[in-house]
Amino acid sequence: MKTASMIFRQLFEPVSSTYTYLLGCEESGEAVLVDPVMPAWQRDLEAVSALGLKLVMTIDTHIHADHITSASMLRREAGSRIATPALDGLPCTDVAMHDAVPLQVGGLRIDPMHTPGHTDNHFALLAGDRVFTGDALLIDGCGRTDFQSGDSRALYHSVRGRLFGLPDDTLVYPAHDYNGRRVSSIAQERARNPRLGGERSIEEFVDLMANLDLPYPKFIDYAVPGNRACGECPQDLPPSLREYCPEMAESPQG
Amino acid sequence: MKTASMIFRQLFEPVSSTYTYLLGCEESGEAVLVDPVMPAWQRDLEAVSALGLKLVMTIDTHIHADHITSASMLRREAGSRIATPALDGLPCTDVAMHDAVPLQVGGLRIDPMHTPGHTDNHFALLAGDRVFTGDALLIDGCGRTDFQSGDSRALYHSVRGRLFGLPDDTLVYPAHDYNGRRVSSIAQERARNPRLGGERSIEEFVDLMANLDLPYPKFIDYAVPGNRACGECPQDLPPSLREYCPEMAESPQG
Repeated sequence: MKTASMIFRQLFEPVSSTYTYLLGCEESGEAVLVDPVMPAWQRDLEAVSALGLKLVMTIDTHIHADHITSASMLRREAGSRIATPALDGLPCTDVAMHDAVPLQVGGLRIDPMHTPGHTDNHFALLAGDRVFTGDALLIDGCGRTDFQSGDSRALYHSVRGRLFGLPDDTLVYPAHDYNGRRVSSIAQERARNPRLGGERSIEEFVDLMANLDLPYPKFIDYAVPGNRACGECPQDLPPSLREYCPEMAESPQG
Repeated sequence: MKTASMIFRQLFEPVSSTYTYLLGCEESGEAVLVDPVMPAWQRDLEAVSALGLKLVMTIDTHIHADHITSASMLRREAGSRIATPALDGLPCTDVAMHDAVPLQVGGLRIDPMHTPGHTDNHFALLAGDRVFTGDALLIDGCGRTDFQSGDSRALYHSVRGRLFGLPDDTLVYPAHDYNGRRVSSIAQERARNPRLGGERSIEEFVDLMANLDLPYPKFIDYAVPGNRACGECPQDLPPSLREYCPEMAESPQG
């Protein structure tokens, strides 16, 4: 596989254990942030500037339940455009992503892959030999399917039918890891992902996902409406959740 | 970090759980194999051909104790040149590797990094944003230091002083993994390698490596002389070890 000429940074946001990805085109000086997170918006913008780049687009892979996107904040501060899945139909979006319709940013080509299951409208993003798998495929794991529009059957097909069809050496960059792992490859996940790899059948997977017995996500009731507005912090956020929206906490309304 | 325009394949050899790396230059059509292994020499050559490339060089990161390199076989069959560490002084070598003296193959630049500790003359190889760490740094581990010219103090300095000094997003490709993991990053290993990451002190590491209580490597007495000859299969190989040199087993002498 030929690797594209792409500036690349993996940035970790510790409140929600989210990886944000900075992709840059050296020729045009333009940059994209994938899944930027509210508490880290200034850090992310500084990372773009430190590379001599200009932020022109943010992309959210899906409507997150565990953090609020900084897409709107970055549009206000840096003039970047907001890309989200077309199927979500969010009025705050500038660029509606469709399956297999590439986003072109300078010399950077990003191919959105509709990969429903964690949410119905979830996208993975392929750029050269790197795939940003959002919450569909995690290292040795996958996103949960028991809230929002989750559907474990759909996720099985998205991961095994689409993502595992990418070339072996495609680098897998997930939206989260809770154990400090940062990168995997399609060959690795296809062979040893304990939920979706090897010979795992769809019925086994559906059963496994139905019995994870996970706690209710503590931020979901704020995150989903906040992200449907492309990243607005709710005014009624309890003090215990303020770290998700530190800007608001510092404002007069906070 | 800017990724180089490099054709890349990670190839797994199951007898010794070795990863061989194919690096290719699209412009010149030339290819390099890093740590090619005897039982897989035909598969590796086919992989080069399938990409429309010509094998011009093999590189051995060090004198291996767990397999025999196919460097000589590939020189005979494909005309490739053999690169090994200069410090080993092997008469069979075509290209003697020195620390920080780049190997240039078409548009591909490979920077050898002297990283002793597993063996005294061990090299890691940096190519763009990928580092091939040989047996110095493994995913969540490291090579053993209790035979050949192993030295745990030297390995500590090689890994923490040199490899961990590479940029965060440098991809770590080890020479082995025994659990199907294929890739990591410098940031990941720096943070969570259980032997060498985090706050691990040199005294703790030396003590840990001195008490691993590992079995004597079953192939070492054949592999080391075979690799000092750039990959000759010993004539006295017992039948139980023939899988390491299947070619010989098929020959009249076998």
